[in-house]
Amino acid sequence: MNHSVIVEVTLRRGIADPQGATIERALPALGFTGVHSMRAGKLFRFDVEAADAEEARATAQSLAQRLLSNPVIEDAHVRVEEVRPA
Amino acid sequence: MNHSVIVEVTLRRGIADPQGATIERALPALGFTGVHSMRAGKLFRFDVEAADAEEARATAQSLAQRLLSNPVIEDAHVRVEEVRPA
Repeated sequence: MNHSVIVEVTLRRGIADPQGATIERALPALGFTGVHSMRAGKLFRFDVEAADAEEARATAQSLAQRLLSNPVIEDAHVRVEEVRPA
Repeated sequence: MNHSVIVEVTLRRGIADPQGATIERALPALGFTGVHSMRAGKLFRFDVEAADAEEARATAQSLAQRLLSNPVIEDAHVRVEEVRPA
């Protein structure tokens, strides 16, 4: 079965986020008020061939830790979205 | 009220994704088989002060279109996650 997986990679709390800070500084000039705590991250969407959702999640988790994120400064959150026949 | 918002920015279908393609090429060397259709995107998490979730969603949608994404090549998906007293 083909599992559609989403991995969200975000900087850990307390790690400086220059991209988010830059976006936040640009907001008043564009007329946005009341928007704060901007944090930027990465998103990966891919398909995993696996027997069940648990196997797909395990593969995606390992991939997220080894290739898609830097576990020292980033958190990776895995979401198995849908299942389709291969 | 403080609304926690997530904006997912992904490349539109058919737009070339060199980052995703590079990740996909690296997978066999790391022992990952059966992973394909890798697409890379961006994720933004921020707080919006708004009277209700609809107002927060409208602000985030406008922000996503004007600052966080390039609507010509990217889709932006807005999710209002939780509400907290300001």
